[in-house]
Parts: sequence; C-alpha cells; structure tokens
Amino acid sequence: MTTSDTLPRDGRASAEAIGSLIDEFAQMSAGGPGVTRLAYSPLERTAHERFREAMTELGLTVETDAVGNTIATLLPEGDTAASAAAIGTGSHLDSVPQGGRFDGIAGVAAAVEVARLAVQDGQPRRRPWKFVVFAGEEGARFGQACTGSRVIAGLTTAADLEALTDGDGVSVAAALLELGLRPEAAATAVWDAADWHAFVELHIEQGDVLERDERAIGVVDSISGSTRMRVHVEGRSSHTGGTPMRGRRDALVTASRCVLAGDAIANDPANEGTRVSVGDIDVQPNSITTIPGVVTFTVDIRDIDGERQRGVARQLEQLYRECAAENGTTVRIEQIGDTSPVSLQAAVVDVVEQAAIALDTRPLRMPSGASHDAQQISHIIPTGMIFVPSAGGLSHVPDEFTSAEQIARGTDVLLAAMRRLDAQP
Amino acid sequence: MTTSDTLPRDGRASAEAIGSLIDEFAQMSAGGPGVTRLAYSPLERTAHERFREAMTELGLTVETDAVGNTIATLLPEGDTAASAAAIGTGSHLDSVPQGGRFDGIAGVAAAVEVARLAVQDGQPRRRPWKFVVFAGEEGARFGQACTGSRVIAGLTTAADLEALTDGDGVSVAAALLELGLRPEAAATAVWDAADWHAFVELHIEQGDVLERDERAIGVVDSISGSTRMRVHVEGRSSHTGGTPMRGRRDALVTASRCVLAGDAIANDPANEGTRVSVGDIDVQPNSITTIPGVVTFTVDIRDIDGERQRGVARQLEQLYRECAAENGTTVRIEQIGDTSPVSLQAAVVDVVEQAAIALDTRPLRMPSGASHDAQQISHIIPTGMIFVPSAGGLSHVPDEFTSAEQIARGTDVLLAAMRRLDAQP
Repeated sequence: MTTSDTLPRDGRASAEAIGSLIDEFAQMSAGGPGVTRLAYSPLERTAHERFREAMTELGLTVETDAVGNTIATLLPEGDTAASAAAIGTGSHLDSVPQGGRFDGIAGVAAAVEVARLAVQDGQPRRRPWKFVVFAGEEGARFGQACTGSRVIAGLTTAADLEALTDGDGVSVAAALLELGLRPEAAATAVWDAADWHAFVELHIEQGDVLERDERAIGVVDSISGSTRMRVHVEGRSSHTGGTPMRGRRDALVTASRCVLAGDAIANDPANEGTRVSVGDIDVQPNSITTIPGVVTFTVDIRDIDGERQRGVARQLEQLYRECAAENGTTVRIEQIGDTSPVSLQAAVVDVVEQAAIALDTRPLRMPSGASHDAQQISHIIPTGMIFVPSAGGLSHVPDEFTSAEQIARGTDVLLAAMRRLDAQP
Repeated sequence: MTTSDTLPRDGRASAEAIGSLIDEFAQMSAGGPGVTRLAYSPLERTAHERFREAMTELGLTVETDAVGNTIATLLPEGDTAASAAAIGTGSHLDSVPQGGRFDGIAGVAAAVEVARLAVQDGQPRRRPWKFVVFAGEEGARFGQACTGSRVIAGLTTAADLEALTDGDGVSVAAALLELGLRPEAAATAVWDAADWHAFVELHIEQGDVLERDERAIGVVDSISGSTRMRVHVEGRSSHTGGTPMRGRRDALVTASRCVLAGDAIANDPANEGTRVSVGDIDVQPNSITTIPGVVTFTVDIRDIDGERQRGVARQLEQLYRECAAENGTTVRIEQIGDTSPVSLQAAVVDVVEQAAIALDTRPLRMPSGASHDAQQISHIIPTGMIFVPSAGGLSHVPDEFTSAEQIARGTDVLLAAMRRLDAQP
C-alpha cells in the first residue's frame, strides 16, 4: 500500500466542498425544470469561467483552447519534472435540455477537489497534473457528442465543425465564432500524445448497475459507441376532415412505424446490449386538424460491439425506407454522429481498480453505455474512468442524483489513482 | 326561373373584388409559410375589424357579440319586413398554424360580395339579411372547433369556455378576456331561432371530390362529426446510452403505437368513411440523448355516422391503455371536443341545389368531411352549405387554393339561393 492510499483524514475529499461547487454550477441554467446549459452556449462559457476562477485561486495556470476546452496545469517541483509526460483528469460542464446537476459536473467538481488536495497536502509529484473541462460534450444540439474532446483527439477537424449543423442549420463553427472562439484554429487544440502519460475521468454512471449491486465505485473498462442519424420524413399535409384515409401521406404515421422498428430491433434477443432510441421529434405543422406533412426525428444507436452498431444503423436505414414506402412518403437520412466503442487501456484501468480496492470500495468492472470524453481521449492517451452511482439509474433528467458523499468517495479513488499513475516510471 | 337567377351581367359576383379582399386578409398573418391567424388571437380581431369596415361602407349596421362573432345586418324596406325572420350567410376568418388563404375566408369574401350586390342591385328584399363572421372556428389551439358558432347555437356555454384549455392550460375564457371580449356573457350571444328563416354558408371543399368530378359547385347535405381527445403519455426519461432496453418506459414508443392503432382502425374496411388523425405531438424533453418521459398528442376522429364516431373513440381509448401497458407507461385521456354529424335541412339544401341548377353549374350533392360553423347553426336554424373546389384537395396548408373565379361562381349560387329563401313565405 502506497502513501497516497493512507492519506490522513484531512487528505480525503470534502463532500461539502464538492456539493457546494455543484450547487453553484446548477444555478447557471437557462431555465427549469432541471438544468439547461447547452453545448456551446454562453452559459457553458460562464461555467468554464467559474472553473478557471477556482483553479486560478489554487495557483494553477489556466488556458482555453481554440474550441473552448479549458485546461489548468499544476506543475511539479523542479525543471526536469515539468517536461515529464502529464497525467490528467476532468469532464464537462454542459448539459442536455432540462438535464440534471451531475452529468459531467461531478467529474469537474472532483477534478477541482483533487487539485485542492494536491496543492494542499504537499506530497511530491513527479509529473505535471492537468485538470480539463471539455467543451460541448452533449450531443443534444448538434447530434455529435464530445465535440471538444474529439477535436483534442484529432477526431473532429475544423472542416467537420463547419459541416456539423443543428436543427436550424447553424454550424458548430458558427456557434463557436459567436462565443469568440476560433473554430478555424481547431488543429491547434489537438494534444500531442508524447506530452501525456495517462488520463482518468470520473463520471456518474447514468445507469442503475452500481445501485442494484450496492457498489460505490465502477471501474469502466469499455465504452459504447454511438451512431446517430437525423431522419426527415416528407409526406403531404392536408385537412384531417376533408382528406379520406386512402391516398393519405401522413408523415407521422411513417415516423411512428420507424420508432417502433428501431425499438423492435433493439429488443431482439440477438441484439442484447444494443440500444436504439428516438429522443426528439419535430412535426410540421403540428396542428390538431392538419395531417403532418413533414416529420424530423433523430435516432441514437449505442453498442459495445461496433460491427453490430453500424449493422443496426444500416438495417434501420433500410427499414425506414420501407416504412415510408408503405404510405407514399419519403425519407432522407443524414448521419450526424458516429463514434466507435472503445476498450479503455488495461494499464490505466488496472491502476484505477487497484486504487479502489486499496481504499476498500469493492469496485465493479463494467462497460459504459453512455459516451464520454474519456472515450475520445483514449484514442491518443492511455485512459481510465471511474463511475459513481446514479440514483434509480436516472440521468439527463432533473431527478438525476448522486450524493456529494458518493462523489467524494469517487474523488478519493481518483486522487489515489492519480498518485499511482504519477509514481509510474 | 326567377328574376334572381337571371341577373344582368353586372349583377354577377366580381372575381376581382373577391380576390382582392382575400389578398388583404392573407396579409394578416403571424408569419409564413402560409397564413397563421389563430382562433382568438389579436390578428383574428384585426380581420374581423376589416370585415366591419367593409360592411359599414356598404351602409350595414355591424355588431360584435360577447364572444367575438361579428354580425352585419342589411334591413329590407319597410317596418314590417324588418321584423320578418332573417336569412344569413357567412363563415370564419381564423386559420390553423401555417394554413391557407381560403378556408373560411372564401365564405366571408362571398358574404361581403353578396352584401355589395344586394345593396347595389336595388332588388326588393322581404327579410333582413345578415352577414356573419364566426369567431374561433379552427380547433387547432383549444381542440374544440367552431367555438363562436357553438356559443350562438347554445352548444357551448360560459362554463365550457372556462373549462376548455389549450396545451399551455390557458382557457378560452381567459383568451377572450385578453381580447376585451366578455366570455361570462356568452349567453347573450345565443341566437333566438324565431328571428331566423335560414342560413347558408359558402366554403372551400377541403377535399378533392369536386375536382375529380369536374364540378364547380357542391351542395352539402350532411357534415361529419368530430371527437377529439388529448392523450398524455407518462413514461420515464433517462439517458439513451446508460439505460438498457429492458425496463425502459419510453413515452414516444407508446405514442407511436397509439398513432398506428388509430391509423389501423380507420383503414379497417368496416370503418370505411371514418377518419382518424394525430396532427400534433409534443415530446418532453425532446433531446437526442434522453428517452422521452412525457408525450402529449391529440387525436381527431371524424365520421358521418355518429354512433361509429363515438364507438371508435371508445375503442381507441381502450387500445391506447393497452399500448401504454405494454411498456410500463400510463395514459391520461381528455376529451377536448365532441361534435355530432348532422344532416342539413332538406328544405334549404334543395333551394341551394335548385339555385345552382338554374345557374347551369351542374352541382353535386355531397357530405362534408370537415366541420363547419354551418353544422352548429343547423342545430337551431334551417341551414345549407355551398362548396367550391379545392385544388388537389389540399387544405390547412400554404398550398390551399381556389381561384377567385371559382369563388365568384359559388357566390352567384349563394346570392341566388338567398333570393329564393328571401322570397319564401
């Protein structure tokens, strides 16, 4: 057992400090219920500024890159160590519409607490420690999740930022410019793998596996991929009374068939583990007495098995066309996001697990159903993830809840893992 | 053949005047595409004021009742005749969201043209002629269609106006108060049947029967009823990635099943003539990465057979509950409108048909699929309806179209029918 695992009582993470910071972030919302602080909105920038303030107070240097990721650095003593490969932690501060207070924020509050403890406990560090808030993690607006971390990993380029648009046709690049950021300089935000040793993200589980199994800590070893499509159904609007059933081209009837086709595929036992969801739908003109002429919806396909994930996407495209043909409507399908599942690096996953075991937390190794910034970062840096429980498995809703004590417990594991990674040759 | 059927050339309706008035109304819109001038909106009042102005210019007296219906009266010569039972015509000036320029407006423009011709041609009239713009005909906002004419017919009371709400919970009464109207005095707007001899409404068909059969004039002999329900599906929101398929309570999956159940019932050959439509749907929180927790939609059930209409509504309520039970969601069903089909009075229908035949229009007797103010008025006054063709059968959409010449042709039939009714003992 290393020194870092036997921290004195006052070397433990403070649930009070974590809870209080999370409360502060929850106030930065465009309106209730829950928290609405969308990707690439001014409120997301406000939250990043609060993070910068907290880190600056602790004496760290803070910079924001071209696409809005905010990175604080805590250098070790001595000139040689400053050029050693860094270790890092962090998460995101944006939310879905009417989301919760913990998704992403828990990991940022944990990062701030780790920085505070590292600064205050005076234990030697061999490497630079970096604390990162990734921008634009939620895909609610642009379809593509993890935009900031994808740019960092070189997976999304300046050209992609131009091409990726929201439902109103506004590109990510335009949204970034609006906020005073520099999408054209996205390439400058890419991290050099040589500068890094390891990265660990703490996040709420967003499922109910830990709670059901009465575990405090999840050690994530793989992360689902996600393929997202926006589907435009074009039918013909007309009067609900004047128009006979024969010859109708009702776009909502088509969309309903598509929703059920996706649900059926994901519930097929052959696809155990595949998740297919239609979360949003827009109907035009959306009037009681008018047959819907145009319906747009998005579908989110998640899987730990990348082959199957893309296979289901292709199968759904075909089924959607068949659903449309049944009543004379047409579909246009746009792929708006495609992330491969990843296996996190065993070297880091094992360190996280050992740190958690050493702290007597009885951790559970598990896959993540949700996408995370860690998934993108793992493409260039050995990466691990720590999950803390989500009450009732709820997430992306106002009722999302993880106690400050549970996050503090995870933060202790995070700090211990960081110390172990710091000590590695 | 009576005098009124052999009007001199200058006694015919002017397509130019009708087209120009319709163009004026089309400008009064909350935005495109098409016309948006909702029931009980300030824009609907603006349109009623334009009607008042046109009628005042012709020398008619105009009043607006407690619920916003506007009524212009053209008295005959002589004191005795002024107390004779009146004949009337008119329609409505509100639209659905992104609707067309002709639905309702055609009948108002025809009424203005009939008033102009009646004032100018100097032919004697035995009865008061009334020209009516009914308020709040479209049910798009409050679910219940024909609110103004239902109040006139005593079918909707002040208490109903309090109880009837839109999707945001605003009651019709509150909307009326906001416009300076007096919902509490709805009873004063009810017409006394003894004051009336007959009523005829001109309207666009909103279907493609006349066009397919190459007819200029439809003589409506019956009107479909409509039962409308607002259905609230309650499931559970959660993360689309973190939440396994098992145990999901996806409200949009339930709603999709409900949409298809309604479509299937209406397409059952046993229900030939029944129309079931879901025109609007609201999904919460409507985010790509969140399973929909609450979905609200409305269903519109239309039929010429009232028994079957209510039977299908009851059958759907049952099916909706079954659809919900399949994935652990619940439904709450609110009836927001219920209008019986009606047979229009043969005495008036026959007069309209004879007038149309006398004008060589080769009219077609037909049912109306859509609801109309005439349907409500027929509960207290012998009523007829004239249809003019809808291009492609389209209605409630920006592409709705009937030429000014077609409306003028219908207006000639309307005036001829009014003269015949005026002449009746």
